[in-house]
Amino acid sequence: LKAGLNGERLEQKGKRQLEWAEAHMPVLMLIRRELEPERPLAGLRIGAVLHVTKETGVLVRTLKSLGASVTLAGSNPLSTQDEIVAALSQEGIHVFARHAETQEEYYSGLDAVIQSSPQIVMDDGADLHALIHAKKSEISVIGGTEETTTGVNRLRAMEREGVLRYPVIAVNDAHTKHLFDNRYGTGQSTVDGILRATNLLLAGKTCVVAGYGWVGRGIAARLRGMGAKVIVTETNPVKALEAAMEGFDVRRMEEAAASGDIFVTATGNRGIIREEHFALMKDGAVLANSGHFDVEVDVKTLRGVSKGSRVIRENLEEFTLMDGRRLYLIAEGRLANLGAAEGHPSEVMDMSFSNQALSVVHLKRFKMSPKVHSVPPEIDLRIASLKLEAMGIKIDSMTESQEEYTGSWEFGT
Amino acid sequence: LKAGLNGERLEQKGKRQLEWAEAHMPVLMLIRRELEPERPLAGLRIGAVLHVTKETGVLVRTLKSLGASVTLAGSNPLSTQDEIVAALSQEGIHVFARHAETQEEYYSGLDAVIQSSPQIVMDDGADLHALIHAKKSEISVIGGTEETTTGVNRLRAMEREGVLRYPVIAVNDAHTKHLFDNRYGTGQSTVDGILRATNLLLAGKTCVVAGYGWVGRGIAARLRGMGAKVIVTETNPVKALEAAMEGFDVRRMEEAAASGDIFVTATGNRGIIREEHFALMKDGAVLANSGHFDVEVDVKTLRGVSKGSRVIRENLEEFTLMDGRRLYLIAEGRLANLGAAEGHPSEVMDMSFSNQALSVVHLKRFKMSPKVHSVPPEIDLRIASLKLEAMGIKIDSMTESQEEYTGSWEFGT
Amino acid sequence: LKAGLNGERLEQKGKRQLEWAEAHMPVLMLIRRELEPERPLAGLRIGAVLHVTKETGVLVRTLKSLGASVTLAGSNPLSTQDEIVAALSQEGIHVFARHAETQEEYYSGLDAVIQSSPQIVMDDGADLHALIHAKKSEISVIGGTEETTTGVNRLRAMEREGVLRYPVIAVNDAHTKHLFDNRYGTGQSTVDGILRATNLLLAGKTCVVAGYGWVGRGIAARLRGMGAKVIVTETNPVKALEAAMEGFDVRRMEEAAASGDIFVTATGNRGIIREEHFALMKDGAVLANSGHFDVEVDVKTLRGVSKGSRVIRENLEEFTLMDGRRLYLIAEGRLANLGAAEGHPSEVMDMSFSNQALSVVHLKRFKMSPKVHSVPPEIDLRIASLKLEAMGIKIDSMTESQEEYTGSWEFGT
Amino acid sequence: LKAGLNGERLEQKGKRQLEWAEAHMPVLMLIRRELEPERPLAGLRIGAVLHVTKETGVLVRTLKSLGASVTLAGSNPLSTQDEIVAALSQEGIHVFARHAETQEEYYSGLDAVIQSSPQIVMDDGADLHALIHAKKSEISVIGGTEETTTGVNRLRAMEREGVLRYPVIAVNDAHTKHLFDNRYGTGQSTVDGILRATNLLLAGKTCVVAGYGWVGRGIAARLRGMGAKVIVTETNPVKALEAAMEGFDVRRMEEAAASGDIFVTATGNRGIIREEHFALMKDGAVLANSGHFDVEVDVKTLRGVSKGSRVIRENLEEFTLMDGRRLYLIAEGRLANLGAAEGHPSEVMDMSFSNQALSVVHLKRFKMSPKVHSVPPEIDLRIASLKLEAMGIKIDSMTESQEEYTGSWEFGT
Repeated sequence: LKAGLNGERLEQKGKRQLEWAEAHMPVLMLIRRELEPERPLAGLRIGAVLHVTKETGVLVRTLKSLGASVTLAGSNPLSTQDEIVAALSQEGIHVFARHAETQEEYYSGLDAVIQSSPQIVMDDGADLHALIHAKKSEISVIGGTEETTTGVNRLRAMEREGVLRYPVIAVNDAHTKHLFDNRYGTGQSTVDGILRATNLLLAGKTCVVAGYGWVGRGIAARLRGMGAKVIVTETNPVKALEAAMEGFDVRRMEEAAASGDIFVTATGNRGIIREEHFALMKDGAVLANSGHFDVEVDVKTLRGVSKGSRVIRENLEEFTLMDGRRLYLIAEGRLANLGAAEGHPSEVMDMSFSNQALSVVHLKRFKMSPKVHSVPPEIDLRIASLKLEAMGIKIDSMTESQEEYTGSWEFGT
Repeated sequence: LKAGLNGERLEQKGKRQLEWAEAHMPVLMLIRRELEPERPLAGLRIGAVLHVTKETGVLVRTLKSLGASVTLAGSNPLSTQDEIVAALSQEGIHVFARHAETQEEYYSGLDAVIQSSPQIVMDDGADLHALIHAKKSEISVIGGTEETTTGVNRLRAMEREGVLRYPVIAVNDAHTKHLFDNRYGTGQSTVDGILRATNLLLAGKTCVVAGYGWVGRGIAARLRGMGAKVIVTETNPVKALEAAMEGFDVRRMEEAAASGDIFVTATGNRGIIREEHFALMKDGAVLANSGHFDVEVDVKTLRGVSKGSRVIRENLEEFTLMDGRRLYLIAEGRLANLGAAEGHPSEVMDMSFSNQALSVVHLKRFKMSPKVHSVPPEIDLRIASLKLEAMGIKIDSMTESQEEYTGSWEFGT
Repeated sequence: LKAGLNGERLEQKGKRQLEWAEAHMPVLMLIRRELEPERPLAGLRIGAVLHVTKETGVLVRTLKSLGASVTLAGSNPLSTQDEIVAALSQEGIHVFARHAETQEEYYSGLDAVIQSSPQIVMDDGADLHALIHAKKSEISVIGGTEETTTGVNRLRAMEREGVLRYPVIAVNDAHTKHLFDNRYGTGQSTVDGILRATNLLLAGKTCVVAGYGWVGRGIAARLRGMGAKVIVTETNPVKALEAAMEGFDVRRMEEAAASGDIFVTATGNRGIIREEHFALMKDGAVLANSGHFDVEVDVKTLRGVSKGSRVIRENLEEFTLMDGRRLYLIAEGRLANLGAAEGHPSEVMDMSFSNQALSVVHLKRFKMSPKVHSVPPEIDLRIASLKLEAMGIKIDSMTESQEEYTGSWEFGT
Repeated sequence: LKAGLNGERLEQKGKRQLEWAEAHMPVLMLIRRELEPERPLAGLRIGAVLHVTKETGVLVRTLKSLGASVTLAGSNPLSTQDEIVAALSQEGIHVFARHAETQEEYYSGLDAVIQSSPQIVMDDGADLHALIHAKKSEISVIGGTEETTTGVNRLRAMEREGVLRYPVIAVNDAHTKHLFDNRYGTGQSTVDGILRATNLLLAGKTCVVAGYGWVGRGIAARLRGMGAKVIVTETNPVKALEAAMEGFDVRRMEEAAASGDIFVTATGNRGIIREEHFALMKDGAVLANSGHFDVEVDVKTLRGVSKGSRVIRENLEEFTLMDGRRLYLIAEGRLANLGAAEGHPSEVMDMSFSNQALSVVHLKRFKMSPKVHSVPPEIDLRIASLKLEAMGIKIDSMTESQEEYTGSWEFGT
């Protein structure tokens, strides 16, 4: 796998995309401008495995501006945008990613990052963190960050088992990350991915959303907003109850399977849609995944129970089952929003990646224990305030009398 | 203040209301039936200050069935339903409450509860907890519960200052409480209160919701659901950003004041709508409060800056300002949903009060430290499961393979 | 049946209600002020059968101001507000209506109106028009108006059969009437009626709306806005398809009957919910009607198949079926929004009744043929413009160049 | 301009797209299968100017199956899909269209259609109808159809002026066309076009929709469904009032211009966004058009007042104004849904084009006068019924007793 394969024109397109993204990531750009003079990351080696999109490009450029040298690999074979690889490579960032790369290339990318002896490890899904720990290559690492719910869950499991050997800031858990990126970012970009892959009318369709976490509720809200009837499946009774109270139809997957026109998984778990469900589905049903890993729809089994398959539209594979029914899979069961569309809009990544950038600076500045840490609340609130400002929104502040009231327990009826 | 003033017919009406409520509180009824045989609260003296509604009646009946003796006072002068007082009194519960009682009567009710030497103290807003602590009357108390956000905030302030002298379970913080009661309960019942008090058309109106906590977002969602344009005011930047992303217009109150047709406060703070805002409002603007205490709209000042006032409809007072503009206040600035409507629907209180009942049993069974405690998660999840069952909703459970995946960090791309 | 039975206090309350309504009917008040000097209805006898609400009071006051003498009867036994009867009677309007009047009283009210030899007949449901034609009492009548879809349908049937003997302006068909009153007015006030009668939580409930005309779609939208899942039943395939595209679940009533928690009929037809459906319903199901006549839920049969019934809350009757299931009927199956709440908000009736007032003036001024006529479009547009102005909304007007473009067919790609 | 330039692979891709479309156009396919045996269009020459998309391909294939020979040109330079041109050409249909064709090519396409001496003229926007009339080439024409609101308006202007020389069926005015295609089709595909062109986050954005006809209300609903705040501009007061009652912010364009992040025009008129508005807009504002012609945004003037422009992303042109502000124009101001996305989903075109096919058969069968005619209601209802069936939706039919009630005027209270 080599970076820099692409010619001039790809690189130019990449630069224009980066410019467009920078224009829509005002918070990260402000942070860049503010911190640039002090170069707080001077000399730092950063290894990152992230979706190689225009927004990641803006993050990486920012880390470089603050003094770091960055080695970047792609976190998903389908999400890499080759023009961004081209543009970043030309700017001196070591990029190891290619759109539609093989599994082998994917792992060689991870290896390249590990070979760069990173001091800070930025990850999206925790594959890199897991690999470093498995290979006992954490010697140079002073800390890491993690972007996703799935990755944070894995890191917490590592912490529980006592095997986590460096501090990781759970960027995902910042309010300004998961409340926005997971909900509004994935919500919109999943709809976008479905439309680009299928061009189906959502109005009047029955859509089944598996999982009612932040990602799932974003997707459910947007599908409804496009006129679909939405069925939600859940295993957690509190979340199931919330979905019901929002007016969604809550059912078990085995009951939903026969009614759905379009299925979207967002659980962070595996085997959500599996053989027993394929057996019940309508001819023409569409399957998409918006969870981090491509394990939510059991694609391997789907392939096994099919007579054959073909690509009928870009990013849309048609499987013909033994009884003649056809099921359609978006982006190979990988993240539909990144595989079939462009991933989260820049404005959302602006907040997530501002958390990333400030978390890296924090890890550099402060010694932290080998645990999963929250993003410091002052970072979270500051990003929210900057974002509001960038959107031209002014909010109230408490009066002195209100501050006093808030802190007190003696006032009453 | 005396209980039992009401004649037979009031009592009959109360009994029918209790029957209606019991039919819509299946979880609490199930808990009652399950625990009744063991009488886990036998001999326990409970002192409660709660809104004396039909749902509270069902809770109190339940506590009595489990063996407790209960003394009950009203937590808000306008929320007491006299027929419920009549019905409960006749069943041997000591009730000290009257609709539209005076401030003096309110405090004499609290006193009566304290005089009963309660072992468990159930409160709604923490006035009773504060009073017991102020009077150093906590000698008999083994623990308490608290129903509201406002009350929990006050108790945490007490905990921080080191003055809290018995354990309190923050029922409000249970998922099955605040995610439902605060959001869906207050959302609907506030709209209900506004409609009963004004009969105005909400479609096309500009409504200003102050506060985007769980209560505020419930109200904002429902007002939008009725066709209103909604402006949200907040002091917390993360919540403000969420409101903006939900498509609400986020502004400062001083900017919203001139545009609003209807204002609703839900902040838990005081002086949210005050003199400087009255000065900017349109002729005909309507003011309502859904926060716990009647301090969010500065009613005293409103009265001061008015030429005069009169009751124009039930629960609706018209204030004529010096310049002739008229402002309309619902239910004296007290909780509009309880003052002008019937408060939360039974189905919502079913969950909140199941948490209350099980928390009281928990306090009786286990010795706890003098802190603010969460509702034990197993109680929370159980209530959610029972509620789903009562609604006829079945949900998925994880397969073994999924359980394994969830606990592991080694699976990856 | 006698008018004026009510004492002073009722009358005062009525006057305050009329004042509140006038403050929220700016268009009708403007029309009143504009036309009053010329007294265009001087000497005209008007006979009206309308819901005797505060808004009708404002209309009748307006007609009187323009010179007419008005005799008014109630169009529904449950919708009459006695305080309005009291207030209007005292102002010299002949009112024949009483809340909860008997069928006999209802018909004697219609008779009284006919006895007044009206020149203009204003009706709501066309019972009066039908009775006049049946009795051949149309001798004095120069024209009429009709307020409802149901009434207009009946009048068109009369026109088709060649029996209509005077011109009737179909006020219902004005854009500024049915697009607003039927949709937003009934939508909101039906929800209001359900809440007042039951205080049930709508979030998470399954509501079945029969009929997807303007009334039905208003109700469906508002129930969804309150968090309910909505099932729509229809007989017209185009409307059914629209409902499906709006994300509603479209089914046959026999399929919906077993799932519904709350049923609302809005079809203008009879026997929509009948014995075969009662047989399928869940214990606790609630039945409401928002169609003009009380024939949509087959109440007579419901009574027949029940062991017994009792009033469990105001405007809510509990029927216990032979197998023990209980069904709850709102407002005797009469218009739930008028029987259990206060009917349409004043702001909506402002437009409907401005159409009524200007249509009466039009009938007086111009000789029209004995047909069902539309409200003249210039009246419709003028009311819309005045309403926008009253709401403080300014809209664009076409530029000259745009006017030219609109009228032409020669411009193209 | 030549058809058939494209190589084998393009043609294969086109065939797969047509297959996908046919799978999602069940009504048109059923009509094809039903009528094919009788070949009702045998020998008929049809000239059509339509967007050359996969759905048009299915229509044209259907017309051919019924016996017609078809000459097809593209109705918009940006909407033509070259793979469809390739696939259709290979099947013996005469196609004159090319993606991004020049204005000259566009008109030569129209000429080619006229040269084919069509007996039936199918048009989209009425350019072909206008040209035929201008050239007095209507000699062979027995009738035509028209797909769009814009086109029907132009044809009605021709009818009013007495110059229309053959009958035209206004397919646009069928309920099963404009209630679905204009509203749900354009609503979704415009959002799709905006996302593909910009990848901006819609949540929290202020979107301005000009025009609240069926197209505009579809767009407004979908943008809101994606989390945007929506401002509507209108010139018709009734529509403006409807928009306000739906909770939209209704303003004049000159007031909206400074607040909007994204503008979409859907008025059917010209100069909706013009120099005076460009002057007020925020840096970064995005302009899109979903009206038929590219005259709604005054692109020529925009170009004139700009220092320069460049394509920053596919279908997105950046204009830099003299003061440095940048405005972004989607798809050159042509239909954004067709230029930047794939146009209406097949399921919507299924209904529109079923109306087209049956209207052509109707024109062939019945002699009609040279006017603008409605689609016969039985066609409209039949298409709705077939569509419901295809969606698996069953609806009620009236009982005998209900039929009787509907036809009668004698039933009453």
